[in-house]
Amino acid sequence: MHLAEYLFRRIHELGVRSIFGVPGDFNLTSLDYIAPCGLNWVGNVNELNGGYAADGYARIRGIGVVMTTLGVGELSALNALAGSCAEHVPVIHIVGYPSTSVQEKRLSMHHTLGNGDFGLFAKMSTEISSALVILKDKLDATKLIDETILECCRSSKPVYIGLPTDLVKAEVDPSPLEYPLRPEEPSRITTKDEEHAEDLILGRILTAQNPVIIVDGLAGKSYNLSATTQFVQRSGLPCFVTPMGKGIIDENLVNFHGLYAGKYSEPTIFEQVQSSDLILVLGPRPADFNVTELKHELPHIERIEFEHYRIQMPSQETMEVGMSGMLERLSNILDKGQSGSVSAASTPSRQLSGTPDVYETISSTSSPLRQTVNGDEFKEFEGSLADESQPLTQSWTWQRLSSWLEEDDIVAADVGTALFGSLWTRYPRGALPIVQILWSSIGYAVGAAVGAALAAREDEKQSQGTRRRRTICLTGDGSFQLTAQEVSTMVRRKLGIIMFIVCNEGYTIERLIHGRDADYNEIQSWDHRLLPALFKAAPNTAHTYSVRTRAELDVLLDDPSFGSAALFDENNPAPLRIVELHMDKYDAPDSLQGMVDAAVR
Amino acid sequence: MHLAEYLFRRIHELGVRSIFGVPGDFNLTSLDYIAPCGLNWVGNVNELNGGYAADGYARIRGIGVVMTTLGVGELSALNALAGSCAEHVPVIHIVGYPSTSVQEKRLSMHHTLGNGDFGLFAKMSTEISSALVILKDKLDATKLIDETILECCRSSKPVYIGLPTDLVKAEVDPSPLEYPLRPEEPSRITTKDEEHAEDLILGRILTAQNPVIIVDGLAGKSYNLSATTQFVQRSGLPCFVTPMGKGIIDENLVNFHGLYAGKYSEPTIFEQVQSSDLILVLGPRPADFNVTELKHELPHIERIEFEHYRIQMPSQETMEVGMSGMLERLSNILDKGQSGSVSAASTPSRQLSGTPDVYETISSTSSPLRQTVNGDEFKEFEGSLADESQPLTQSWTWQRLSSWLEEDDIVAADVGTALFGSLWTRYPRGALPIVQILWSSIGYAVGAAVGAALAAREDEKQSQGTRRRRTICLTGDGSFQLTAQEVSTMVRRKLGIIMFIVCNEGYTIERLIHGRDADYNEIQSWDHRLLPALFKAAPNTAHTYSVRTRAELDVLLDDPSFGSAALFDENNPAPLRIVELHMDKYDAPDSLQGMVDAAVR
Repeated sequence: MHLAEYLFRRIHELGVRSIFGVPGDFNLTSLDYIAPCGLNWVGNVNELNGGYAADGYARIRGIGVVMTTLGVGELSALNALAGSCAEHVPVIHIVGYPSTSVQEKRLSMHHTLGNGDFGLFAKMSTEISSALVILKDKLDATKLIDETILECCRSSKPVYIGLPTDLVKAEVDPSPLEYPLRPEEPSRITTKDEEHAEDLILGRILTAQNPVIIVDGLAGKSYNLSATTQFVQRSGLPCFVTPMGKGIIDENLVNFHGLYAGKYSEPTIFEQVQSSDLILVLGPRPADFNVTELKHELPHIERIEFEHYRIQMPSQETMEVGMSGMLERLSNILDKGQSGSVSAASTPSRQLSGTPDVYETISSTSSPLRQTVNGDEFKEFEGSLADESQPLTQSWTWQRLSSWLEEDDIVAADVGTALFGSLWTRYPRGALPIVQILWSSIGYAVGAAVGAALAAREDEKQSQGTRRRRTICLTGDGSFQLTAQEVSTMVRRKLGIIMFIVCNEGYTIERLIHGRDADYNEIQSWDHRLLPALFKAAPNTAHTYSVRTRAELDVLLDDPSFGSAALFDENNPAPLRIVELHMDKYDAPDSLQGMVDAAVR
Repeated sequence: MHLAEYLFRRIHELGVRSIFGVPGDFNLTSLDYIAPCGLNWVGNVNELNGGYAADGYARIRGIGVVMTTLGVGELSALNALAGSCAEHVPVIHIVGYPSTSVQEKRLSMHHTLGNGDFGLFAKMSTEISSALVILKDKLDATKLIDETILECCRSSKPVYIGLPTDLVKAEVDPSPLEYPLRPEEPSRITTKDEEHAEDLILGRILTAQNPVIIVDGLAGKSYNLSATTQFVQRSGLPCFVTPMGKGIIDENLVNFHGLYAGKYSEPTIFEQVQSSDLILVLGPRPADFNVTELKHELPHIERIEFEHYRIQMPSQETMEVGMSGMLERLSNILDKGQSGSVSAASTPSRQLSGTPDVYETISSTSSPLRQTVNGDEFKEFEGSLADESQPLTQSWTWQRLSSWLEEDDIVAADVGTALFGSLWTRYPRGALPIVQILWSSIGYAVGAAVGAALAAREDEKQSQGTRRRRTICLTGDGSFQLTAQEVSTMVRRKLGIIMFIVCNEGYTIERLIHGRDADYNEIQSWDHRLLPALFKAAPNTAHTYSVRTRAELDVLLDDPSFGSAALFDENNPAPLRIVELHMDKYDAPDSLQGMVDAAVR
C-alpha cells in the first residue's frame, strides 16, 4: 500500500469524508489518493479559508483535515490553525514537502527562503500544534502518522504532518489498519481514586443548600460532551452556560436557566448564581470575552471545577480523575428522574434576552422580497413597509432569530455584534453555535460555515435524510470582507447556507473600543447582492435579500419558503441565501459596550 | 512626545507615506498617530493582502510598513512577511499588543491561546524576521525602535515591532529624531582591502577574452542598485539578466543581451553565455525557478560573484569587500564611453521571446470594447472580430505586451503563466517587475499591486506630475481568487490599476506539474466583470473588458484611451481597468513546461 493511501484510510476511519485546502506543487500527487479512499476534495479558495473550514467541519464531525503546500500554503493557514489550538478543535494539517533528497541536499527551492532550511516553517507551527512530524522514512512513517493522529484526538488540538513528495508512493505495511485508532484515557486512574473522589464530591453536593452547574467551553469537547449533557439532565441541578458553553446544553431543559456572562448576565440570572453556595464548573475555560476566573469573580462561592483529567475541589485539593467518568458516576447517583425538555412556547418567562424590545407581528405582504439570481438580472426589494416600520436594531434582530431557529441548526457567527448579539438568541434543541469566543478572528464564520455545511450534509446522508441541518452564517460587513471569496466555494459545492450580513458601515465592535468615528474603522461598502452572479451561481441556486426594517425581516423569516429545512431535500436542494441586514453603524447589542469597556487591554 | 508619534516620525523620515494593515483592538490607539505624522492609513481588506501591499510598496519606495494586531492579525500576514524575507524586501511589521501589565499578569485574553503566553506569536515570526522586539519599557523603547528599523534597512528583510497599548502614549525623549537613521556599511573594509580586490578583479577581467555580466536578483536591492546599473552601463560588457534580475537593467542598453534562464534561454543567448570565459555575477540568488547554482550549470566558466559584503573569486578566494563600492571603482576604470540606450524599434534583432508567433496587426473596429460600469448596468462586448481571428495564446499575449508597455511601468505578476510568460515581455526603460520568483505565492500580485500603485502615486506627486507611472497587475483566474477582495481597496483608494486576469479555468501551472485534468486543479469560474459593481465603484471610475482573440486585444491595446499614462492626471484620474484574457486551459508559455519538468520536487 502507498503511504498516502495509508494516511487517507486512517483519516476515513475517523469519520472524515471531506478534506479542505488548496492544491500546491508539493501536495499534488497526494491529492490523487483522496477520492479513491472515499474522501471528497473540497478545494477552498485560499488556505486561511481552508483552515477555517476544517475547523468548522471538525466541530460537527469530531475532526477535520486541511492540506496545504510548504511555506506559502501552510503559513496562510496559520491563523486558522492557531484558532483551532486556542479553541481546542482537532484539525490535522497535512503539508506537502519536497522530496527527502531535495531536503537533504538543502537545495534552494521556490516556496522557501532559499537558504536550504526546510524545517523552519514547521518550527513556526510547533507553537500551535500538539504534535508535529515531518515524515522522512517509510519505515516509521505509518507509526508516526498513527501517533500524530491519536495525539490530535487526545488533545483536541491541531497536529502537523509533513509529507514529502517521494514518500507519497512509498510502499508501506498496511497491517496496522486492521486495528482502528483508539485514543485512550490515561491508565493511571484507578477505581479507588474515582471512588474517593466520588465520595468527596457527592458529600459537597449533598450538603450544599443551593448547588448550581455552570457549563463552560471545554465541557462541549467530544471527550466530555455526552457525560456533560447526561449529568445536567439527570442531576436536575440548575444549569447555566457561559458564552463559550452555549450550545452544549439543550436550552429547553427545565433545569436550564440561561446564559451566565458575569455582570453582563440578565439580573435575575446573575442573582441566581450569586446566591448559590456551590458551583460545579464543567470544562472551565476562563477568558476575557467568556467569563474570567470565577475565583476572582465569585470569591464567596465554593466551586468544584471539572477538567478533562483533573477535578479541583474547593479546598484547593486536586484529584487526578477523569471528568467524564466522574460525571457518569454522579449522574447515576443523583438521577432525579425529573428532568426533561419543554417546548420554548411553554416557558415564556425564560426570556434569554435582556432587551426591552418585544416581538412585533406584522402581517406578511405581497412584496417580492426574494431577488432571484437569474443571469445578470436583479430585482431590488422596495416594499411599502419600508417607510412605515421601525428600523432593524441589533437587540431586536438577535432576539427575533430565537423563534426562527430550528432544531439542529448550525450557527457560525463572527466575533463582533453578530457573535455577541446572538449569545442572547434562544437556541432550540441540538442547535450548535460555531464561534471563537477566545481566538476571536474576524472572517472565521464564513470559512467555518463552509466546513460546517459539508459536515451537516454528511450527517444528513448518514441519517438517510431523516435529520435535516441548516447551516446559518452570521457575520458583519467588515468581517465578511476578510474571507468573502469563500462564498465561491458555497456556490461551487452547492452549499445552501443562509448568510446574514450585518451592514453597518464598518467595524462596529472597534468603534465601541476606540475610534468611534475614525477613518480606520470605516470600510468600503459592498453590494452583496452581486455575489451569486460574480461566482456564477446557476439560475435559482442562490437568492439575495436586502432588509432594513423589522417588518421586512418578519416577512422574510415568517415565509417558510425562505428558510425552513423541511422544504428542501436532495432532489430539491436548498439555495444559497444571502441576507443584508442594514443597521445603524453605532448600534450594538445592549451588553457589548459594557463588555468591551470592562475588557483590559 | 508619545512613543507612537516617535515611531511614525521615524517611519516618515524613511520616505514612507502609506501604512498598510487592518485595525484590531490592540492597535487602534496607535492608529490615531498615523495621520498627524503625515502618513496615510490605507486599510486593507485583510492582513495577508496588507502584507503583500507593504511588500509591493517597499519595492518602489525602499521600505514598507504593515500593522496588525496580536495573534489573529499577525499570523494572517505571515505568508506575506515570509515572502518579503525570501525576496529580501524590507518591511516593518508593527503588531499591537495588550498592555504590559496584562502581559505580566498572564491574563487569559482573546486573540491568544488562553495560556498567558503573549510571546509565542513573536516566536513564530522570529524565523522570518531579521530583528524582532516587543517593547516593554518606555526607557529603552526609542533606542530599540531605531535599532530595529536600522536592521530592516541593512538586511533588506522584515522586522517585527510589538507595541503594547499602554506604551502608545508613553512620554519619550524626542531628541534622537534630530539625527536621521543611517544604515552604515561595515567599518572593517579598508581602502587597502579594496585596492587589493580591485587589482585581482581587474586582472581577471582584462585577461578574459569574452567576459560577460549576469545580473541576478540581489543586484536590484537598494544597497546595490545604482552601482549595478552604473557598472553595466559604463563597462559596456555584454549583460544578461536572470529571471530574478529582470527589471534591474534598462533592456534598451546596447550591451543588454537578454534573459539568461539556463537552458530555457533563447538558443542564441544560451550560446553567448556558454562561450564566455568569465562571468561577473552581480547579486547571485540561485533558486530552482531562477537560475540554479552557476558552478553546477556552467562549471567550465570562471565566475566572479559579487555579493553585498563579499566577493568570491574563481580560485575560491573570498574577499570581504562591499559589492557596491567595488563596482563603483571598476566603473571608473572600465568606462568605455560607448554605452547608451537605443530605442526598441531600432533593435528588431533582439527579440526576447523565443516563440514563433509574430505580431499581427488588425485594424481597429468600432466595436464597443469598453464596458462602462454605471450602476448595475453592464454591456458585454460582442465584437464581430471574435469569430474571424485567432484565439489568444500565452506566448502571443506576453509578447504582445512588449509594445504596449511604457517607461516606468510597474508590472506585478503572479507566479504561474502570468509571471513566467511575462519574463519574455520586453521591458522599456524604468519598467519594474514586482514578482516572487523564489517565494512564489499565488495571489501576491493583487495585494502587491495595491501597494505599488500607492507608491507610484507618491512618486508622481514628488515629481510634481512630471513622472507618470502605471501599475499593471498580471494574474490568473486561480491566483486571483486567493486575494480577490483587495480590488475593493483599489476602488476605495481610487487606484487606477490595469489588471489582466488570464481566464483559463484553473491552476494551469499545476496542470503542467501534475494532474492535468484532475478535479483539484479546477476552480469555480467567476464573472470578473461584476467586480466594480460589487465593490460599489463610482460611475466611470472602473471599466471591465473581456477579450478572447488577438484581434480584440490589439484593438484594446492600440486604443490610447484604454491605457496610456499620458492621458490621465490628478484632475482626470485613471480608472481601474479589469481585463479578462480568455485562453485555453492547457496553453502555457513555451518555456514553462520544460522549466516545470526540470524542477526537482
